[in-house]
Amino acid sequence: MNLPRTLWYDGECLHLIDQTRLPAEVVDRCCHTPADVWEAIKTLRVRGAPAIGVAAAYGVVIGAQQALRSDPNASAITIVRAALATADELATCRPTAVNLFWALDRMRACARASDSTCSAASVIDRLRAEAVAIHEQDEALCRAIGQHGAGLVPDRATLLTHCNAGALATAGMGTALAVIYTAHQAGKQVRVYADETRPLLQGARLTAWELSQSGIPVTVIGDNAAAHVLRDKQVDLVVVGADRIAANGDVANKIGTYGVALLAAAHGVPFYVAAPTTTLDLSLASGSVIPIEERSEAEIAQGFGVRTVPENVQCYNPAFDVTPARLITGIITEHGVARPPYEISLRSMAKARS
Amino acid sequence: MNLPRTLWYDGECLHLIDQTRLPAEVVDRCCHTPADVWEAIKTLRVRGAPAIGVAAAYGVVIGAQQALRSDPNASAITIVRAALATADELATCRPTAVNLFWALDRMRACARASDSTCSAASVIDRLRAEAVAIHEQDEALCRAIGQHGAGLVPDRATLLTHCNAGALATAGMGTALAVIYTAHQAGKQVRVYADETRPLLQGARLTAWELSQSGIPVTVIGDNAAAHVLRDKQVDLVVVGADRIAANGDVANKIGTYGVALLAAAHGVPFYVAAPTTTLDLSLASGSVIPIEERSEAEIAQGFGVRTVPENVQCYNPAFDVTPARLITGIITEHGVARPPYEISLRSMAKARS
Repeated sequence: MNLPRTLWYDGECLHLIDQTRLPAEVVDRCCHTPADVWEAIKTLRVRGAPAIGVAAAYGVVIGAQQALRSDPNASAITIVRAALATADELATCRPTAVNLFWALDRMRACARASDSTCSAASVIDRLRAEAVAIHEQDEALCRAIGQHGAGLVPDRATLLTHCNAGALATAGMGTALAVIYTAHQAGKQVRVYADETRPLLQGARLTAWELSQSGIPVTVIGDNAAAHVLRDKQVDLVVVGADRIAANGDVANKIGTYGVALLAAAHGVPFYVAAPTTTLDLSLASGSVIPIEERSEAEIAQGFGVRTVPENVQCYNPAFDVTPARLITGIITEHGVARPPYEISLRSMAKARS
Repeated sequence: MNLPRTLWYDGECLHLIDQTRLPAEVVDRCCHTPADVWEAIKTLRVRGAPAIGVAAAYGVVIGAQQALRSDPNASAITIVRAALATADELATCRPTAVNLFWALDRMRACARASDSTCSAASVIDRLRAEAVAIHEQDEALCRAIGQHGAGLVPDRATLLTHCNAGALATAGMGTALAVIYTAHQAGKQVRVYADETRPLLQGARLTAWELSQSGIPVTVIGDNAAAHVLRDKQVDLVVVGADRIAANGDVANKIGTYGVALLAAAHGVPFYVAAPTTTLDLSLASGSVIPIEERSEAEIAQGFGVRTVPENVQCYNPAFDVTPARLITGIITEHGVARPPYEISLRSMAKARS
């Protein structure tokens, strides 16, 4: 398999595959400053809940390094303050995916754990080690999700997925697509229908790209063809990612996920969510309180460089929706497949995490 | 209200608003030959089941006129043969909408009714009169559909529609949108969510354009946001058009309609189809035998001039899907609102037609 390396840190800069340029070209975007990282997350050069968590963690390291570069005599406390300020700044870039906040909280805790005996350089070393740990943990979570999920995929399976919950959405082999990759590696024949996923076409541009790079047959469909495909194409299961999962199992994910879940239920097709426990937000009783990011009308009105909506007409562009737990057959985490009732199964997954 | 004049015949040419150019510019496309009409229908310069029926009828007239121009001494029988050949040719351009075949059958019957006493010119006069009759009938059907449907729309209503079943899809004020226009004319406040309708964005480009021209508030959404909107935006009803309706009430319409019908049912939102009885095909027992046009992969892969799907990746692009009758609250025709069981109600609508 030929999985993309979505992001990597060279000791000074965070490198990203600029996902706004795929599939036309594979461009290495180098983020030198926290502002570069903020911009890259905001504009979806890097996207996917786990990947933006890892990117933000490195962003905090870069903020601390920048502070030391601008004042080589800076005290440890100055570096800690810079790290915390960077974390606060990066927390503003996207509201829905909880992994961003989870990673920033870890980086803040790491910064605060520095005591007065630390040197500025050692604060940076600790922050860097923590970001690398978050990165490596994400790789491991993806592998474990793939292993737990692959057993759900029959041989000669037809799957449907929405948006991109693949290697490009994580620092590893993906979440939903990790399930597919791992089944493929185990010798199962799988084919995938990928919803193109308007407005930004992550399914067409990213999922199709990374699956085809790995030799997995993939067919792109318009989002609105999903019902027809679920009825006519013997789809065995649907698997998608998640941006935030509430305590009751309600899942916020890319706009359209809720519709696909309803359509899967109407056709008796199992609907799985794959996500690491870093995506759980047990502080939220249900999905109704998850903040839903609204993005620019232009993503709908001129998504392809050409204006397709009349000038004076409004668009509504929620970036996410919430799928109620009752529509979800199982939630595949690194600790196994959570089943309803999710209040209980997710709590035990979260305990296994800590 | 400011409704577009979708097509008109100047005595020699068929003029169309070129719908592939909307909303950027309103271009008058002039069809001088049957091949021009064929191309215009095939490439969706004119689209919508009723409109392509009317366009094809004029295409037959133009075919007959062309035969007379190329041989001013042509006999009536030559003109009749040219008309029949043109009808056969035009019948190949799109397979799903039945109105095309219905209109061509009328034109064929008109041609065949010419007897040996007719002059070539009088054959053309008859064909022209028949095409004008089809055109005027379509205008009347649209008005009647609007009147029957408007009663289903509450005041301060929020509606959702898919694709374009408006003035641009007919020779009159539309089918689904006639319901909205007529409610609006009756003084009701209505607002509309329009699915953009990938791949060719008839919702974004055409429905939004014609509704906004008439001062009706319209908001464009990505197709995959429909479930979220149906849950969160108090949608009172969904209304869509149809390309072919089987005897049992199954409806072929633009890809995505079936999904919207399932989503409406899941939210308890009434789902109406608006179509003239010329869209009924009582020769088909159910929708499973309606031929579904598959269109070019390029419509998905590079819909806007930019390639969004990797080069080596397949797309699947069915242009229509079939919504089963059980999901349809009512079918609004020019003779009233057919309700389940449709085997009976549609048969009585068809009788009223004849």
